[in-house]
Amino acid sequence: MTRRRFTGQLDLEHGSVDLTHGSGGRAMAQLIDELFRRHLDNALLAQGNDQALFQPPPGRLAISTDGHVIAPLFFPGGDIGCLAVHGTVNDVAMSGARPLYLAAGFILEEGLPLADLARIVRSMAQAANEAGVAVVTGDTKVVERGKGDGCFITTTGVGVVPDGIDISGDRAVPGDAILVSGCLGDHGVAIMSRRENLGFETEIASDTAALHDLVAAMIAAVPEIHCLRDPTRGGLATTLNELALQSGVGMRIHEPAIPVRPEVAAACELLGLDPLYVANEGKLVAICPAERADTLLMAMRSHPKGRDAAIIGQVIEDPHRFVQMETAFGGSRIVDWLAGEQLPRIC
Amino acid sequence: MTRRRFTGQLDLEHGSVDLTHGSGGRAMAQLIDELFRRHLDNALLAQGNDQALFQPPPGRLAISTDGHVIAPLFFPGGDIGCLAVHGTVNDVAMSGARPLYLAAGFILEEGLPLADLARIVRSMAQAANEAGVAVVTGDTKVVERGKGDGCFITTTGVGVVPDGIDISGDRAVPGDAILVSGCLGDHGVAIMSRRENLGFETEIASDTAALHDLVAAMIAAVPEIHCLRDPTRGGLATTLNELALQSGVGMRIHEPAIPVRPEVAAACELLGLDPLYVANEGKLVAICPAERADTLLMAMRSHPKGRDAAIIGQVIEDPHRFVQMETAFGGSRIVDWLAGEQLPRIC
Ligand SMILES: Nc1ncnc2c1ncn2[C@@H]1O[C@H](COP(=O)(O)OP(=O)(O)OP(=O)(O)O)[C@@H](O)[C@H]1O
Ligand SMILES: Nc1ncnc2c1ncn2[C@@H]1O[C@H](COP(=O)(O)OP(=O)(O)OP(=O)(O)O)[C@@H](O)[C@H]1O
Ligand SMILES: [Mg+2]
Ligand SMILES: [Mg+2]
Ligand SMILES: [Mg+2]
Ligand SMILES: [Mg+2]
Ligand SMILES: [Mg+2]
Ligand SMILES: [Mg+2]
Repeated sequence: MTRRRFTGQLDLEHGSVDLTHGSGGRAMAQLIDELFRRHLDNALLAQGNDQALFQPPPGRLAISTDGHVIAPLFFPGGDIGCLAVHGTVNDVAMSGARPLYLAAGFILEEGLPLADLARIVRSMAQAANEAGVAVVTGDTKVVERGKGDGCFITTTGVGVVPDGIDISGDRAVPGDAILVSGCLGDHGVAIMSRRENLGFETEIASDTAALHDLVAAMIAAVPEIHCLRDPTRGGLATTLNELALQSGVGMRIHEPAIPVRPEVAAACELLGLDPLYVANEGKLVAICPAERADTLLMAMRSHPKGRDAAIIGQVIEDPHRFVQMETAFGGSRIVDWLAGEQLPRIC
Repeated sequence: MTRRRFTGQLDLEHGSVDLTHGSGGRAMAQLIDELFRRHLDNALLAQGNDQALFQPPPGRLAISTDGHVIAPLFFPGGDIGCLAVHGTVNDVAMSGARPLYLAAGFILEEGLPLADLARIVRSMAQAANEAGVAVVTGDTKVVERGKGDGCFITTTGVGVVPDGIDISGDRAVPGDAILVSGCLGDHGVAIMSRRENLGFETEIASDTAALHDLVAAMIAAVPEIHCLRDPTRGGLATTLNELALQSGVGMRIHEPAIPVRPEVAAACELLGLDPLYVANEGKLVAICPAERADTLLMAMRSHPKGRDAAIIGQVIEDPHRFVQMETAFGGSRIVDWLAGEQLPRIC
């Protein structure tokens, strides 16, 4: 699209978002041109229309959306910009799909420093680039001071599912193995420690990452994977309960098999959190036929994002659809859904 | 998806949104099951996975996203729920596409009455139903009191573009005719009069409506339409400037030809607004070859949503890409982009 000529440049160093940036007029056009289009640059976004047109590759498409309202906007290991890419890329990928395109809707609060927004957009652009997806259409709204919280980003993604792949939360069957791709709780603990201003000896960083390439490697090794899900809000415990409910099965997991970093376990104790309920942003749960579990585990461990993968339990028959955990001390307890609110605005 | 059994029912009469509804746990699952899934019910949403899978019809796809932050949430002629459907359906349709699916991301403020949310979701469901689209995937986040404003909804839509159709903002050429589908300014004036608590004799209602069926009728009559755009934020004036810039042309419009309801014109005078800059939510601008303009006009006028359609001007050569208006008194003036902020949070 032809570039407009504006009278002054956006002041990305000292300027801040004001209501004119959401007006639909010249100031908004300038913000979109000089900040969003500049960094998120791609041929489809450059069409400059109210929508982006594309010819989808053959196959079924997957679509998913997530609003991101995380506080603070910047945290150890990431920020809302890359998180908004990873979150949606991952939900698309949990169908086995290769993510293709993203749409991004920004709701900005009056007063947000343009420098912060620029940092967020650059991070988003880099994350999209690394994940091989393009932000092809967007929207920018501004709300008055006190009616928002800096920046909310809703990203919607579409991807294409390889033929012959049938991954769904209702496909777990008794006997299946349950795997996780790595250590749990890093994201939630990173946010909480920043929020509570806890200075741990070793800083705990969010695990925020795009998992579609790990998923592709897993599917290449074991195309008959039954379920994939990323344990975000509600953590592993809630995700397993969702899958048990959806498939009409029970699950038994083994506490000592569940990977948690020692520093995360320590922080959880301090913060009164249970790592099983803490949100992750770069981990997945996989369920597959027992006889393929070792092959899947090897494929995961050979991938940088699955290095700490583990088999943590199995699917069992259970009309109550309970998730049970054998504890380190040989006992057993029910692992319920997250009740109440453990960690508000974690993503 | 199998329904969960919750201990108590959601109290849709006296309850309100709290942080647990965004926790990812049991309370959120209940809200989604008993409110969102119940009303937005469709086979794809019922898949109950992190994404919805669908087989796209053959052809190019169009994707578009819009955040909706309108205040107040309920207004004469509509509410944020139906607006969030119409806004995105229309942006998809402005490519000539038939809209297929929507994704909806809700950002709720703690304290929002569940009764208001239910009203919004029902309105959304009805609008989607009427427009023949399905909300196939969603997301629910909750922010603390004072960090949002009741309810923000970001909707993303996908649609399929008929073969042989090539509608884009860069296709206007000198000589083309410029048409609008109806009276301008209704939406913005409806919101402002509600916000300012102005009691006009005849209540002015928003024109919020889905335009894809009007577009389909227009394409059937005149497949060689060059441009379509809905004059939302920034109004007709800004939309014409966008198209002029994108196509590298000028435009000349005739003030007396531009349809504005007398009561809207009167309200605009009172409010100090120019109807050319006021947002619409159920109107479109079309540009087509001059020799097809009468056929297009007839097709528009035969459709209930184009009854007041009019030819308002023509595309001209102009290296400056100006939009000029011949006034009712025979003068001529430049119609510039919207500068500043006329109507915050109009959509
Ligand atoms: N934050 C953003 N990042 C990237 N592109 C954006 C962003 N905001 C808007 N755009 C792009 O700018 C163009 C204009 O967007 P705009 O929201 O004004 O269109 P619209 O949705 O038709 O209008 P409205 O939002 O008033 O209904 C579109 O091509 C859109 O994809
Ligand atoms: N407001 C809503 N309307 C309709 N469906 C919804 C809504 N919110 C969530 N859903 C649906 O509920 C299911 C769970 O959504 P959820 O947001 O928990 O999944 P997720 O995106 O994987 O998790 P997270 O948002 O924590 O990353 C999905 O099938 C989603 O489409
Ligand atoms: Mg998600
Ligand atoms: Mg998920
Ligand atoms: Mg928009
Ligand atoms: Mg729009
Ligand atoms: Mg539009
Ligand atoms: Mg979600």
